[in-house]
Amino acid sequence: MGASPPGDDMTPAALTKNEMTDGTQSQLTHVAGGVTAAEGFRSAAVRAGLKKEGLDLVLIVADEPAAAAGVFTTNKATAAPVVVSREHLGRSGGVAKAIAVNSGCANACTGEAGMTAARDMAAATASVVGCPLEETLIASTGVIGLLLDTNAVVGGLQTAATGLRSDASHDAATAIMTTDPSPKETAVRVRTSQGTFVIGGMAKGAGMIEPMMATMLGFITTDARIDPVRLRQALVSVCDRTFNAITVDGECSTNDSVFLLASGQSGVDIDDAQWPHFMAGLEAVAGTLARDIVRGGEGATKLVAVEVTGAATPEDANRAARAIANSPLVKTAIHGSDPNWGRLIAVAGRAGVAFELATAAVRVGPVTLFANDAVYADREPEAAAHLKGREVDIGVDLGTGGSSEATVWTCDLSAEYVRINADYRT
Amino acid sequence: MGASPPGDDMTPAALTKNEMTDGTQSQLTHVAGGVTAAEGFRSAAVRAGLKKEGLDLVLIVADEPAAAAGVFTTNKATAAPVVVSREHLGRSGGVAKAIAVNSGCANACTGEAGMTAARDMAAATASVVGCPLEETLIASTGVIGLLLDTNAVVGGLQTAATGLRSDASHDAATAIMTTDPSPKETAVRVRTSQGTFVIGGMAKGAGMIEPMMATMLGFITTDARIDPVRLRQALVSVCDRTFNAITVDGECSTNDSVFLLASGQSGVDIDDAQWPHFMAGLEAVAGTLARDIVRGGEGATKLVAVEVTGAATPEDANRAARAIANSPLVKTAIHGSDPNWGRLIAVAGRAGVAFELATAAVRVGPVTLFANDAVYADREPEAAAHLKGREVDIGVDLGTGGSSEATVWTCDLSAEYVRINADYRT
Repeated sequence: MGASPPGDDMTPAALTKNEMTDGTQSQLTHVAGGVTAAEGFRSAAVRAGLKKEGLDLVLIVADEPAAAAGVFTTNKATAAPVVVSREHLGRSGGVAKAIAVNSGCANACTGEAGMTAARDMAAATASVVGCPLEETLIASTGVIGLLLDTNAVVGGLQTAATGLRSDASHDAATAIMTTDPSPKETAVRVRTSQGTFVIGGMAKGAGMIEPMMATMLGFITTDARIDPVRLRQALVSVCDRTFNAITVDGECSTNDSVFLLASGQSGVDIDDAQWPHFMAGLEAVAGTLARDIVRGGEGATKLVAVEVTGAATPEDANRAARAIANSPLVKTAIHGSDPNWGRLIAVAGRAGVAFELATAAVRVGPVTLFANDAVYADREPEAAAHLKGREVDIGVDLGTGGSSEATVWTCDLSAEYVRINADYRT
Repeated sequence: MGASPPGDDMTPAALTKNEMTDGTQSQLTHVAGGVTAAEGFRSAAVRAGLKKEGLDLVLIVADEPAAAAGVFTTNKATAAPVVVSREHLGRSGGVAKAIAVNSGCANACTGEAGMTAARDMAAATASVVGCPLEETLIASTGVIGLLLDTNAVVGGLQTAATGLRSDASHDAATAIMTTDPSPKETAVRVRTSQGTFVIGGMAKGAGMIEPMMATMLGFITTDARIDPVRLRQALVSVCDRTFNAITVDGECSTNDSVFLLASGQSGVDIDDAQWPHFMAGLEAVAGTLARDIVRGGEGATKLVAVEVTGAATPEDANRAARAIANSPLVKTAIHGSDPNWGRLIAVAGRAGVAFELATAAVRVGPVTLFANDAVYADREPEAAAHLKGREVDIGVDLGTGGSSEATVWTCDLSAEYVRINADYRT
């Protein structure tokens, strides 16, 4: 499709026109309201006492049972809330009425007691909302190995249920933070020939960026009307290009979860014609949240787009981009604004993918520094100037002549990252 | 085999007795002399002008053509000297008379001109030593993308050939350094019922620990008598447990090479009975050099042994150990002496190996912090005390009930690493 998601710096006034290959058009407009921007959703954030201070428990409720999809961590040390939510989505066939989220405790590596606590949290959610147990989803983030204080959670949920609002998304985005530098929420209105619908969401963390903290969490809602099977298909596809295409430190936590709920209240059906517009909107929301997570990575000073081209297969493209994005040598060079192309070539060569040195190339911003075995050392100052920016992009062509490509977003590696992660508990 | 290699802190007086399963015994004694400790080898180090200052070119010559084996980088961006040396070993059938090594220039990513320079370096070596071209091996380390100054190398080799000595190994170990904090050399005398032989060597670097520098290089010689096929078998096997079981930053360079030459001058044949003794000696030398490389890693303050047990397969054990050893969250926690067992579990869970949380365990030094879903938080101070040492070990049992295990050595990740790699060229 020819559509590209709107930029992250999109202002409320900005409009993005997406022209699809079939000639249909849609317009994306940034709107306020985050996870409750779409019709049919309300939220409440309360202090349950799980964190040292501040809001730490969120309840998100759909007016009517909503189509629901989830993607979860691939970590085999799966946290209890992930086990429960996955189970519920299976039993409900992709329907959910409420999501409960706590920060301050990951409820991971907590054994049978942790499973009991997670089930109690889901049961309390069902009880205060008045819905079947399997229509509840739960997520936790915080310290690993700490048991969830079920009493605090149950009390908090009771309070939250009495204060649900459609304009309190900022509190919700704040309550799911652990040491995120700021709350992350965004929403877009998608206008097509069929009508208008909204997609909005919030997120926290970036993989295991926290000391003993776990979790990247994402919560997205929409008032488009879409069945659970398509909803899941959309979420999986978009996550691959957004939440799964970011890395701060290569870690995958025990609690990672992204949920997507669709209320259908806009009346716009996501049929084949609307599908590309829905995907463009969803990718705009998920992409913005994902890149905001990287921007807020520990010690991060730059957002880095790593673009790999000329790969033999999509898997190779992704693997090489990920290897480059996780290389401490690449990340430190970018931190120092050093256009160190030799490191990029060396990582591509060791990434376990098809690679041809004689036809490979390295680009920093718009500047090609190495191509066809030729070194352009005189261009390094121009490349260094690009690297001094807060948003940089680097490109590596693997030289295989293949047409596969991938983009992964990462941040630089600073001494501050080391200080945060080495000194956290001392 | 019941033998274990002698410790790295082995003094010249120290003796290690190795009792083999067949009841035979050997004794390992540390001796001076590094890469020329074994009979039949001489070396010379000169300044060719490739580095800004100091010795930068080494010639190692065997009195008679020696059995030879090599292992090389798996990086697909293979440097020219690696291509040439691999070719020569193939053509000679595992025989070498001389090794030439330069620092200051990796001769990597240099295209056809680089291949010509590497061939010229080998030809000059053959010429000054007076041996067939295929009996020469070459290695380079230093800046990537810089063409080798062939005139400087040829002149240097001519000078070196006139000054070969059997007691100049320290100069050789010094000349192959790039920014290694100190030269790395070691040697052992192996005494068995069949007689006595010596194995010695030197090494530099640790993967791509250097900014725009490439290479881990190792050079080992012995006066044991062993045919090229067995020699190669021994080198590959020992490298897997030593040079290939270390990591500073997960990078694999364009130039990594380890060579092993056997002169046979001790008169001791490495037959089936002598094989385990030879392997114990070789592992002692390669292991000491490999661990010294990690100790000298950029910004490193600790040597960390990562032991994975309870793995379903040897591949799983190795993969998990490597993932833990390369995790920035694990490495920063160790730097801060934080017994952060949750990070170890989370990395094991995401490592792509068979893993059972319910029966997994984490050990820091002698202290078990997590096992069978139980958390032992009260033991953390004891674990933290262990982590304050300069040599620490951590253990993770994957909980599968399998008997496979692996050990990988790494260092901690400090703010100094970031400073060195971010600020190198600014």
